[in-house]
Amino acid sequence: MNTQQIQKNIVNGVDVSKLTQTIDDLTQKPDLAQFHFCARNSWINGGQNRTTVNAFYGAGKTHVRSKPFVFTKDEPPVLLGTDQGANPVEYALTALAGCVTTTLVYYASAMNVKINKVETVLEGDIDMRGLLNIDENVKAGYKSIQVQFKIDSDASQETLQKLIEIARKHSPVANTITNATPINLSLA
Amino acid sequence: MNTQQIQKNIVNGVDVSKLTQTIDDLTQKPDLAQFHFCARNSWINGGQNRTTVNAFYGAGKTHVRSKPFVFTKDEPPVLLGTDQGANPVEYALTALAGCVTTTLVYYASAMNVKINKVETVLEGDIDMRGLLNIDENVKAGYKSIQVQFKIDSDASQETLQKLIEIARKHSPVANTITNATPINLSLA
Repeated sequence: MNTQQIQKNIVNGVDVSKLTQTIDDLTQKPDLAQFHFCARNSWINGGQNRTTVNAFYGAGKTHVRSKPFVFTKDEPPVLLGTDQGANPVEYALTALAGCVTTTLVYYASAMNVKINKVETVLEGDIDMRGLLNIDENVKAGYKSIQVQFKIDSDASQETLQKLIEIARKHSPVANTITNATPINLSLA
Repeated sequence: MNTQQIQKNIVNGVDVSKLTQTIDDLTQKPDLAQFHFCARNSWINGGQNRTTVNAFYGAGKTHVRSKPFVFTKDEPPVLLGTDQGANPVEYALTALAGCVTTTLVYYASAMNVKINKVETVLEGDIDMRGLLNIDENVKAGYKSIQVQFKIDSDASQETLQKLIEIARKHSPVANTITNATPINLSLA
C-alpha cells in the first residue's frame, strides 16, 4: 500500500480500513464485540473522592494502559464541598459529550463525510429536592439533557441531522442514559 | 460556638449544620433547589475530544470556579483511538462512582454514622455490535452496571445496606441512568 492509499483511508483521523475490518470481525465473531469496563473509586473526605480507570477487556483480551487515568470529584461550596474537582453530574455530561461526538465522527468517517469541527454544549436541570429527599415526587437525576451541536462540514444539513440521530441511537453513553439501564449495588 | 461544638457538627468531612440548613432552605423555597449544569466539548481528532466544565447555576445564582475543569477523552487502539484519555463509557462509570459515594457519605453524615473508608468497584458490559449497528437487537449501552461497595464503619450491616439503598435511589447520576432520562440533540 502506498502513501496515497494510506491517506485515503484516514477520514477525520479515523482509520476507515481498520473500522471496516473491525465491523467485519465483530459480525463474524460476536464474542469479540463483548467489552467489559471497570473503574475503582476511593472516598477521600466529605464530597471528595477519586476514581482510577485502567484495564478493560475487549476483542478477546485484557488491555492495560501505560498509566492509569485518575479523576478527582468534589462538590462546590454551595453543595457542601471544596471544589477540588468537577462534580459527578458534570462528569456525566462530560461522558455523554465525548460519546455522542465520537459516535458521530466515526459514522461520518465510515460514510466518507469530512468533518472540520464539532462543538457541543450540554445542559441539564436537576432539582436538588430529589437528592435530599425533601419531596418524594421529585426525580433525583437530570430531568432531561440538551445537547446542541455546532458542526463545520461540507455535508448537507440533512446528512448532519442524520448523523446526530445516529449518535443519539448508537452512542453507548446516550443509550445507557435513555434506556433505563439497571444498576446493582452490593456490599462486599 | 466553641471548638467542641464545631467538631461535633462536622461528620465525615460534611458540615451537618450547613446540610440541615440547606434542607430547611430548599424545603421553604423550592426555587433554590433548581440547579442547571453545563459542559462544553470540542472534538480534536478521531476518537479524541475535550470537555470544559466551569459555571453552573444553583441556589438562586451563577457559580464560577477559580479555574475550569478540563477532561480529555479518547479511545484505546482496539477502538481506533490513541489512548490519550479514558473513554466516554469509563467517564460514565467515574461519574456514577462519585455520585453514589457522595450520596452515601452525605446521608451517613446526616444520620451521624461515622464512615472511615468507602471503596467501590464499578463494572459493566457493552456489546459493541450495538455501537456499530451490526445487530439492531443489541443495546448500544451498558447492559447493566455493578457497583460493589467496601465500607469501613462501626455501623451495622443493616445500616450500611440501608445507606446503599438510599444511594441507589437518591444519587442524581444513578437516578439519571436508571430512569430513562430523555436526551435532546439538536443542530445549531
